[in-house]
Amino acid sequence: MGCAVEGQGDTVTATVLPDRPGHVEIESIEGDGGRLTLEAPKNCVGIAAIETLKLLGSPSCGVSLKLQKGLPLGSGMGSSAASAAAGAWAVNALFGAPLSKQVLVPAGLASEAIVSGYHADNIAPALLGGFVLIRSCNPLDIQQLSFPGDLWFVLVNPVFEAPTAEMRAVLPKQVPMASAVHNSAMGGSLVAGILQGCAKATGRALDSDCIIEPVRGPLIPGFAAVKKAAKDAGAYGCTISGAGPTCVAVTDGQQQGERIAEAMVQAFRQSGPLEVNSARVVRLDHEGARSI
Amino acid sequence: MGCAVEGQGDTVTATVLPDRPGHVEIESIEGDGGRLTLEAPKNCVGIAAIETLKLLGSPSCGVSLKLQKGLPLGSGMGSSAASAAAGAWAVNALFGAPLSKQVLVPAGLASEAIVSGYHADNIAPALLGGFVLIRSCNPLDIQQLSFPGDLWFVLVNPVFEAPTAEMRAVLPKQVPMASAVHNSAMGGSLVAGILQGCAKATGRALDSDCIIEPVRGPLIPGFAAVKKAAKDAGAYGCTISGAGPTCVAVTDGQQQGERIAEAMVQAFRQSGPLEVNSARVVRLDHEGARSI
Repeated sequence: MGCAVEGQGDTVTATVLPDRPGHVEIESIEGDGGRLTLEAPKNCVGIAAIETLKLLGSPSCGVSLKLQKGLPLGSGMGSSAASAAAGAWAVNALFGAPLSKQVLVPAGLASEAIVSGYHADNIAPALLGGFVLIRSCNPLDIQQLSFPGDLWFVLVNPVFEAPTAEMRAVLPKQVPMASAVHNSAMGGSLVAGILQGCAKATGRALDSDCIIEPVRGPLIPGFAAVKKAAKDAGAYGCTISGAGPTCVAVTDGQQQGERIAEAMVQAFRQSGPLEVNSARVVRLDHEGARSI
Repeated sequence: MGCAVEGQGDTVTATVLPDRPGHVEIESIEGDGGRLTLEAPKNCVGIAAIETLKLLGSPSCGVSLKLQKGLPLGSGMGSSAASAAAGAWAVNALFGAPLSKQVLVPAGLASEAIVSGYHADNIAPALLGGFVLIRSCNPLDIQQLSFPGDLWFVLVNPVFEAPTAEMRAVLPKQVPMASAVHNSAMGGSLVAGILQGCAKATGRALDSDCIIEPVRGPLIPGFAAVKKAAKDAGAYGCTISGAGPTCVAVTDGQQQGERIAEAMVQAFRQSGPLEVNSARVVRLDHEGARSI
């Protein structure tokens, strides 16, 4: 499962390339510190655009793209999915938006599969907004879950390149039965919290993962202190966003969020070597990818 | 998680025993084929009654109980919890029902802990009705989930003493990560199906357990054929009820249920050595334990 939040995001500008059917070119990328390739078939926005052109029935022109990164790379906030969602939506919009966002999900997923791994929990909410439950990735089977009420997240992103290989290697191949039962109950509890619009239940379910967080948390210096500080400051729960290193806390208002953010930043500073890159209080987004 | 269904159930008659504070006596048990003990501290209805008297503040009298079993023993339909729920509610009702059903759950759980194992997924719905999600057993943390709509189950109980020890021994101590992720998504999907009143999603989530059913199913002769027959006949899903041997299918109407029941019974007959004890089409119960 994943969800979209308001605020930071990637922006893609798409222009018609006449007489270049199927061709996608990336004109420029800003905000990535020069780290992303301009080769479309190897870039998340490029791949999503290529796949979207196919879904559009291979029109007789191509597209040129400009990408402005709003999300930091390798932050655990779904940066590649943000680019892919923006790319797919921009190309679709360029042709009058004949395709629904649901139909665009596979285009974004093809991009994720190449640059980040075959999983829909970032790309589906980035396109659709809100919470999206991934019932199955193959075949793709997703369900939007609407949260009736106000939900806020505190996202604290430390200056830390999460060691992706280690973050993956540390995941156990086998899980104790009791942990599987617990996390399955938490999966149910999370969905109940969302559908009933209960920030407290949502935060609590996210807080009590006993499979992933216990092994990944220790790889993020200061995480335990940050989690404790968030909850002491009133957060309903705090965990790792994606594979980290961003820490995410759940609350139900902006003011509480600001207090929690301050406590989390201070905990990072006091506990370890990590500087804080950004601390943001953001609301659940219900719209997903959009034309601006 | 568990749920209550209409129809079959256990009935307890409670009478005051003057001047016997805290004393619980079981006067008679019918419908158990003589298999249950009349010793209250060792019998599920007796233990629940003893615990309920404590919750009532240890009144100056005791209670005498008559138990009429409506559910078959060892069927996977929560027979012991049915007795415990009826016992707790009857004793509470005898004193004017000062305690809520929520408060009675621990009394029933104490009974389950002794006769069946410390788990609340039968006793909580038997008392409260509907679906109940067990977030945690220790400390007890449960959540009622209301299904807005019509939900029917087909319960086919074969004449087969499920080998309890083997049924437990066959459960893996470790679970592959992919299976844990899948079942966690199904836990979420099940809760979504329930809260959104979608029989189809509810049935599908119950149908696709990849941890327990694959190892327990083969211990019930004919199960695979019965599951297939149920779905071929239009059931939204079919799985094992509790630890079996009862098979349960999900549908959204009584007529469809009758057709599915017929197909399941026939599959049992054609595929194996097992006779069918009963085949019932029952509706989700929203009330739980009640005075009659």
